[in-house]
Amino acid sequence: MQNVVILGSTGSIGRSALEVLSRFSDRFRVFGLSANTNIKGLRDQITKFRPKFAVVTEKKSYYKIKKEVSGSRVKILFGMEGMKEMVSNPEVDLVINALVGAVGLIPTWETIESGKRLALANKEALVMAGELITKKAKERGIEILPIDSEHSAIKQCLLSGKKKEVKRLILTGSGGPFLKRKNLQNVTVEQSLSHPVWKMGKKITVDSATLMNKGLEVIEAHWLFDVLEEKIEVLIHPQSVVHSMVEFVDGSTIAQLSVPDMKLPIQYALFYPERMAQDTQFLNLAKLKNLTFLKPDCKKFPCLGLCYLALELGGTAPAVLNSANEEAVNAFLQEKLKFADIPKVIKKVLNSYNPVKNPNLNDILSADEEGRVKSKEIISKLGEKL
Amino acid sequence: MQNVVILGSTGSIGRSALEVLSRFSDRFRVFGLSANTNIKGLRDQITKFRPKFAVVTEKKSYYKIKKEVSGSRVKILFGMEGMKEMVSNPEVDLVINALVGAVGLIPTWETIESGKRLALANKEALVMAGELITKKAKERGIEILPIDSEHSAIKQCLLSGKKKEVKRLILTGSGGPFLKRKNLQNVTVEQSLSHPVWKMGKKITVDSATLMNKGLEVIEAHWLFDVLEEKIEVLIHPQSVVHSMVEFVDGSTIAQLSVPDMKLPIQYALFYPERMAQDTQFLNLAKLKNLTFLKPDCKKFPCLGLCYLALELGGTAPAVLNSANEEAVNAFLQEKLKFADIPKVIKKVLNSYNPVKNPNLNDILSADEEGRVKSKEIISKLGEKL
Repeated sequence: MQNVVILGSTGSIGRSALEVLSRFSDRFRVFGLSANTNIKGLRDQITKFRPKFAVVTEKKSYYKIKKEVSGSRVKILFGMEGMKEMVSNPEVDLVINALVGAVGLIPTWETIESGKRLALANKEALVMAGELITKKAKERGIEILPIDSEHSAIKQCLLSGKKKEVKRLILTGSGGPFLKRKNLQNVTVEQSLSHPVWKMGKKITVDSATLMNKGLEVIEAHWLFDVLEEKIEVLIHPQSVVHSMVEFVDGSTIAQLSVPDMKLPIQYALFYPERMAQDTQFLNLAKLKNLTFLKPDCKKFPCLGLCYLALELGGTAPAVLNSANEEAVNAFLQEKLKFADIPKVIKKVLNSYNPVKNPNLNDILSADEEGRVKSKEIISKLGEKL
Repeated sequence: MQNVVILGSTGSIGRSALEVLSRFSDRFRVFGLSANTNIKGLRDQITKFRPKFAVVTEKKSYYKIKKEVSGSRVKILFGMEGMKEMVSNPEVDLVINALVGAVGLIPTWETIESGKRLALANKEALVMAGELITKKAKERGIEILPIDSEHSAIKQCLLSGKKKEVKRLILTGSGGPFLKRKNLQNVTVEQSLSHPVWKMGKKITVDSATLMNKGLEVIEAHWLFDVLEEKIEVLIHPQSVVHSMVEFVDGSTIAQLSVPDMKLPIQYALFYPERMAQDTQFLNLAKLKNLTFLKPDCKKFPCLGLCYLALELGGTAPAVLNSANEEAVNAFLQEKLKFADIPKVIKKVLNSYNPVKNPNLNDILSADEEGRVKSKEIISKLGEKL
């Protein structure tokens, strides 16, 4: 029996992870949960899964739920310190980090520091501090198990050859809701939130609409698989059936396909390297008929190129890129910034930034902060024109 | 340095194999060649590769080439006995069996008996005697390396999981030249020989037109990978870019893609499990744009179902199926049988046949003979109506 902690348990990935864990309740026990403000969701999960710990990161919500569950067995902890305490608890075997954004960095670090297995959906942690995290994981002998359909696909495809035989990683992406739309000037929040394939949280859905998500995944893949950025390509594949591919030096390309359902990569991460049977989600290629592929339009979606640029700049540049994106997306969701201005904010911040080389964790946290301050300035200027 | 024998060296696969070997002349030495009647081709290959042995299986051609190369170092051998002598020569390390049809069975057997590595393009050997061959190979500790784009693909995809985790093998096929043609009554030899994707020999090209080739591959896959026939599916994929797939129990499907060029699976077989770099044949999925999949039309192409039936009947049934097909295709190529009658001949032979269970090699050779006699009777009756 493995004790599992799920960070971000009320989000889309968190809920899917709990579904998977429920199916394998003979192997996994839900030890801890965490949420930000979704108190109703968290309370229901506490009732159903009876964890030992739950963390709430928003103050009001923390006091509210503490009151609601008083008398029950669950211990409610607060904030980042609470997450650190929970993941490092000696009883914990596996941490599923399904947090969204830079907030996932410290818990990721703490999970690895305390030697737990890590199933990572929080791509921003790797974007910000990929070098540090992967180095530390290696030191601790921990393999980071990606919960992202693309990286799960790549992990599966890589089994077909040796690392030195890899020619390219090909990350596929649906292209988002604006694949066919010509002008992105007047994109509304609502339009950007209607993803054609995946049902996800708001931040990642906007990231998918700008293709920032794919760019962040390039950075993530670079660190997870130790492959140079020039060997990582993005291919648009609107059906989202091929989740990614690996091209080998002999001209053979291995692809992973499945129905687009996050429960599959979650399950793969939980049981890796074993594959566990499930009986509902199988692909019917004959029914599907058509798979299409096209190059991404880097002019229409400048975020993709900015991610490659950040990787090239190195050091703390990806952390700054990430914080600028988070601020810009947040401002867009609050209707304080135009959709088309999201890449402009990131570009301006990145262009005026001097990255710290070989950063430690503090350098990265400072860069994150600096990126946010600069972004807010730029956003408020651009926002004035709205 | 490995000494390599190529059986059927003047055929399509044989020539491609020699091209691959030429590129890796630091690793492989062409030790022996074999041909049937293509004397000019064989003589050129002898001049270029300077093998120790060459076998000719057609009598006149044998005498002719013996005369032509007299004085040179190469030793010319005759027929099946010559092939047996050549493959079992103690200096031989690897045999590439690129023979077409039942004639490939004995050399396959001899190769395994004498403990050589076997790269097998001759699918008919496995169709006829898959159980015996795979059992013997296991005893001798020899892994049979498939040279068929589909089986090479499956071998590569299987690396992504464990054998017990396999749910289905999905063999893809282009659908042949008559995928879209409604009526196959008046198909000419010329029409049946114009394959939309692959340039191959006549027999296999007609097999591709009837979908018999795909059916033979189902039987081949059954023996090579030890997977039940009900777990082997065929999917039509006109672009011939996805060469086959493996679906695992967790809902993940792994596919192998490449440009359709037999040099790639040949190279994979030669170096397995290593992948060697090449620099010309890489896939451009964005240029290709579209991959389509559809179920095979088993009514229009009854040969496919007959292959599943033969596997189900077991014993010597697949050997009889194979010989009936060879006779029918041969008659069709000589314009003594209609294209649409090829499956009829096979069906009649199979229906009136009582398979021998747990056959030995002699039982299989007798079944092959019996199938041919019966087929010729049926063909001559059907031919009278032409």
